[in-house]
Amino acid sequence: MAGRNKPRHNREIELKFLVKRLPDNLKRQPHFIIEQGYLATEPGGRQVRLRKRGNATSLTFKVGRGSHREEREIKLSPKQFAALWPGTAGRRLRKVRYEISCEDLLIEVDIYRGRHKGLVVAEVEFRDMASCSEFEPPEWFGREVTREKRYSNVRLALQ
Amino acid sequence: MAGRNKPRHNREIELKFLVKRLPDNLKRQPHFIIEQGYLATEPGGRQVRLRKRGNATSLTFKVGRGSHREEREIKLSPKQFAALWPGTAGRRLRKVRYEISCEDLLIEVDIYRGRHKGLVVAEVEFRDMASCSEFEPPEWFGREVTREKRYSNVRLALQ
Repeated sequence: MAGRNKPRHNREIELKFLVKRLPDNLKRQPHFIIEQGYLATEPGGRQVRLRKRGNATSLTFKVGRGSHREEREIKLSPKQFAALWPGTAGRRLRKVRYEISCEDLLIEVDIYRGRHKGLVVAEVEFRDMASCSEFEPPEWFGREVTREKRYSNVRLALQ
Repeated sequence: MAGRNKPRHNREIELKFLVKRLPDNLKRQPHFIIEQGYLATEPGGRQVRLRKRGNATSLTFKVGRGSHREEREIKLSPKQFAALWPGTAGRRLRKVRYEISCEDLLIEVDIYRGRHKGLVVAEVEFRDMASCSEFEPPEWFGREVTREKRYSNVRLALQ
């Protein structure tokens, strides 16, 4: 997802898993609060998302679903963000994100807050299809839920 | 609509009419090319629009339909605009807008280009419901189409 080092206008290849148990030393990994909300979403996966990640604010356009998805992201100034954010009322979610480096991959663990408290998911982004197919989930991962709509952030935010 | 002097985060009261014939001296009025496209739209009228108006680029969030509508608009830098604009491919329209001052009202006349060439509409924005009810359309206005979805910019852009 929208990590700092990710190319900004590209197709994403990523997998999402439930998390059976939190890995050791999680609290020592880099982490920050993410608040996000949706200005508009379409059934086919097209969406415009606002996000505050620590102090960094952004707007992201996505289209498509599943392990392939096109994404376009811009940084927003605090003023731009403040003007648009009220438009996401009733369509928001809040989570703490931990970033775990694992060999040459980055695993993002999201611990949801608010009405989805108890839900923990991990996302892994790959540079190509080959590295995606070769991926062996660590022991603390649960079921893969990449294509399960109920665990999409849009669904979680709207419900 | 998104005129320069309009309050930015408010409810709009506006009426839309077809134009029977172009008013005299139209070419002498201030005018500019507008290109706009939609990143995402929902059936209830919720939408995120990108617009280039002359050289000014903006992103507008709208929710609601008809003569009442909530609108939030931010200016975008050329770089921000360029990053998002490809996301509107296949969902765009192009028109020339003329601004006509008429007593204390502003009439915006939009002459569509491209595949909607031939369509001309006029929009009038009011500061309150009273001035909206008192409005007498000039002789060159045609039928009122405020609530006709076929003339909404979203529909025109998607079709």
